[in-house]
Amino acid sequence: MVSTPARPPVGDHQLSEAHRCTLGPIATPDRLLLGPGPSNAHPTVLQALSRTPIGHLDPLYVELMGEVQELLRYAWQTDNRLTIPMSGTGSAAMEATLANTVEPGDKVLVAVKGYFGLRLADMAGRYRAEVATIERPWGEAFTLEEIEAALQHHRPAILAMVHAETSTGVCQPMEGIGELCRQYDCLLLLDTVTSLGAIPVFLDDWKVDLAYSCSQKGLSCPPGLGPFTMGPRAEAKLAARRDKVPNWYLDVSLLNQYWGSNRVYHHTAPVNMNFGMREALRLLAEEGLENAWARHRANAERLWIGLERLGLEPHVPEELRLPTLTTVRIPEGVDGKAFSLHLLNTHGIEVGGGLGVLAGKVWRIGLMGFNSRAENVDRLLDLFEAELPAFRSAAA
Amino acid sequence: MVSTPARPPVGDHQLSEAHRCTLGPIATPDRLLLGPGPSNAHPTVLQALSRTPIGHLDPLYVELMGEVQELLRYAWQTDNRLTIPMSGTGSAAMEATLANTVEPGDKVLVAVKGYFGLRLADMAGRYRAEVATIERPWGEAFTLEEIEAALQHHRPAILAMVHAETSTGVCQPMEGIGELCRQYDCLLLLDTVTSLGAIPVFLDDWKVDLAYSCSQKGLSCPPGLGPFTMGPRAEAKLAARRDKVPNWYLDVSLLNQYWGSNRVYHHTAPVNMNFGMREALRLLAEEGLENAWARHRANAERLWIGLERLGLEPHVPEELRLPTLTTVRIPEGVDGKAFSLHLLNTHGIEVGGGLGVLAGKVWRIGLMGFNSRAENVDRLLDLFEAELPAFRSAAA
Repeated sequence: MVSTPARPPVGDHQLSEAHRCTLGPIATPDRLLLGPGPSNAHPTVLQALSRTPIGHLDPLYVELMGEVQELLRYAWQTDNRLTIPMSGTGSAAMEATLANTVEPGDKVLVAVKGYFGLRLADMAGRYRAEVATIERPWGEAFTLEEIEAALQHHRPAILAMVHAETSTGVCQPMEGIGELCRQYDCLLLLDTVTSLGAIPVFLDDWKVDLAYSCSQKGLSCPPGLGPFTMGPRAEAKLAARRDKVPNWYLDVSLLNQYWGSNRVYHHTAPVNMNFGMREALRLLAEEGLENAWARHRANAERLWIGLERLGLEPHVPEELRLPTLTTVRIPEGVDGKAFSLHLLNTHGIEVGGGLGVLAGKVWRIGLMGFNSRAENVDRLLDLFEAELPAFRSAAA
Repeated sequence: MVSTPARPPVGDHQLSEAHRCTLGPIATPDRLLLGPGPSNAHPTVLQALSRTPIGHLDPLYVELMGEVQELLRYAWQTDNRLTIPMSGTGSAAMEATLANTVEPGDKVLVAVKGYFGLRLADMAGRYRAEVATIERPWGEAFTLEEIEAALQHHRPAILAMVHAETSTGVCQPMEGIGELCRQYDCLLLLDTVTSLGAIPVFLDDWKVDLAYSCSQKGLSCPPGLGPFTMGPRAEAKLAARRDKVPNWYLDVSLLNQYWGSNRVYHHTAPVNMNFGMREALRLLAEEGLENAWARHRANAERLWIGLERLGLEPHVPEELRLPTLTTVRIPEGVDGKAFSLHLLNTHGIEVGGGLGVLAGKVWRIGLMGFNSRAENVDRLLDLFEAELPAFRSAAA
């Protein structure tokens, strides 16, 4: 045995009590989360979360992983082998799509029409992509012609875009874009954070090569996991990399050995979050995608009709409007933040504020997953009707 | 409004039922996890996990974040301002220490004495460090003299090492290393994954500049969060970076704006995991670090005495042995994997196998957090006594 210095007794150090604050048991309230997310989780998902953990290499966990993968494929309508929940939030899964496929100097074209497009551009730059962007005002979408012109001009290796832009409430029409990407030999990377499980997504039909989402919106699970999927064309780009993926935690070539048939240890999976995810996806499969999509659409329309009745104006024209997330213009003379704080503190209801160029200009109302229910719509509309006038006059 | 192609009805696509598997409700068993982690979570931590989520920008969540930060400082015995739980597992926090401080070409010296030292070296290389290593056999630790000689020879910007090596069960004596790092003007980065909350850690006294840990061992929480801390010298290195941190999700300069006084949105925090973390840290503060440390030591000694009585040999000499994780040599002629599978399938008890060069040679027995209790030790020893002989003879 090598000689080592003897370990001193703890007594050599003085234990500091400086940061030992005394707290009572946790006592968070039951909020109704009608903002951009997190949304409320389904009660049986919360029950699943609180089960006793099992080991991440336990045969029963391996089986559960397979179930989660299979049901994610259903939710996304994809056959992609590499479909897994990343052990982080949706932003980690977003970063994983770029980290694995971008090599230094690759051109990445980002179609920016809101906050999350900007984030994609920021992330791609960190992986040393040559980043180009095309932009639309916040509240609009891209036409096929605009996409084609940009592909022709930039000839990117990857086109990255957002299906459901959470910052604006716009749904990007996807028909034809995948075909263009094949034609111009580039990968199509799609953000489905605010669409998965809630509005129609046909990943394989749309010829999407890389996509990511989150757990806390259409899937009715708390935040903490980032569904990720990668098709064969993206896999080929990963396999042809010259160097290691410059991100160990999100390296799909390593994760593949854990989620694949080898089950090689990579990191300790967040098993309880995956208990919740399994239950959330089970509920979605039980309801059926077509029913879940129809429910989200019906409750969104109920909201839109109610807002119109109250003279409140959605920021996005109806044909591009997301059923999951509605941006509502804050009326002239109203302190939007004061009203949403009032909803939160007096009624326990969270409604989001604007992000980026829409900060202070809109509220963001989410009706996602478990929360997409008529009674939630009616409760919120009643409060807008009864209590907004006071804020209107007070500020006027 | 810009012209956009009309959104086609869902009917243009055929919904595939291929991956719509039908599952029953989740039914995982109540395992006793006595492997290298995850360990069982405390029951009130599991209750906290299943609370209704609140928003990540909710004033009540902001308050909870402050509590988690403060109690992490207590657990680590540090005053570091930048002390936060990363929204990923311990491996994400590990990567965060390197991602934020390594600039291309920086020399990083890794002291490797097991699997997790190798991982640090792999990760550092991905951030384009010039990586140098010193090595000790798996089961041994470094002397101060070895560390000093390597610092003198390599003159690294960062020395990275593992306090409690989960792959071997060795505790690295830390006295004097921080002083050497100051003398040689390098940052000291320490893995405290299998030590935080369970064995003495005095981060500031030891002059550690960067550290990380996990939620699922000494803290009695399920896996999914990675405590991270950064002292003033590491903060200065981050502030002096020429380029952006090449990892968006783990970029502390962005996270700082969310966890700091600005509360600028970065990513949607895993709020339920943080509910659990808050409860886990509250329990630790209630027990008191000195009591938690004494409990882990007492139960480990109970295990060691019992193993000796059974003629089973720990892999690590007692003076370097971790109270949290004991590597036990698999006796000649025993199929170690068959016995641990038997424990799992017949008794619902998980014990770990060896990693890397110790694969097939040791079992890894963890007594961590909520699981560090005399009755667990006795139950396991009884099973070793009663049921190991059958595996011994069967294989002989």
